Amino acid sequence: MEVLKVSASSTPKKVAGALAAVVRGAGQAEVQAVGAGAVNQAVKAIAIARGFVAPNGIDLIAIPAFAEIDIDGEERTAIRFLCQGRSAPVPADLDQKPEPKIEARFHEPLKLPTRPERAE
Amino acid sequence: MEVLKVSASSTPKKVAGALAAVVRGAGQAEVQAVGAGAVNQAVKAIAIARGFVAPNGIDLIAIPAFAEIDIDGEERTAIRFLCQGRSAPVPADLDQKPEPKIEARFHEPLKLPTRPERAE
Repeated sequence: MEVLKVSASSTPKKVAGALAAVVRGAGQAEVQAVGAGAVNQAVKAIAIARGFVAPNGIDLIAIPAFAEIDIDGEERTAIRFLCQGRSAPVPADLDQKPEPKIEARFHEPLKLPTRPERAE
Repeated sequence: MEVLKVSASSTPKKVAGALAAVVRGAGQAEVQAVGAGAVNQAVKAIAIARGFVAPNGIDLIAIPAFAEIDIDGEERTAIRFLCQGRSAPVPADLDQKPEPKIEARFHEPLKLPTRPERAE
């Protein structure tokens, strides 16, 4: 999976653009940040990216996790955000009900009930 | 919805405990943080809380958003994480397929194909 590395000096809007592009293509992406400043920029980027992919019908969610990574031979704890696009949320009571089939509706001519002509 | 306010000096594990309790009860909660240090602690808390609610069959996800809030008459931009529990993820190809009915399987006696006895 594509991993986008974010630092404290990253521009959230630029990261958001890259994140949105990956999510549109692959459905998900990972954002990695080390340190409070980087995590803060990563979170802002995800919030902004939500707006970028929303017009594509994608509701972007984030799953944060710890990850042990190696930086110059030193072990550091990074935060990794698994960012996934989910389709727009469905109200619980509509969930899993099959779509009603209404194919015939627009193909058959409308039949009005016949009515005897009125004599005036 | 319950809003948990996190500061840079909050203990992630304590926040995680509170968050897990609210999510178990109400299904969702909001976590609010102002500043990079606070956002960092909030993200750690959410990652830890995921582990607290996972044994309850809850897959905790986060939706970050900006929020304008008022602190001592001054307008500040906060980060708000909408934390929602979703049921364990289902592989895409199994999604929406109805569960097969196998009720009879364990009630009917096993019928083996009959075979004529062999004369030795």
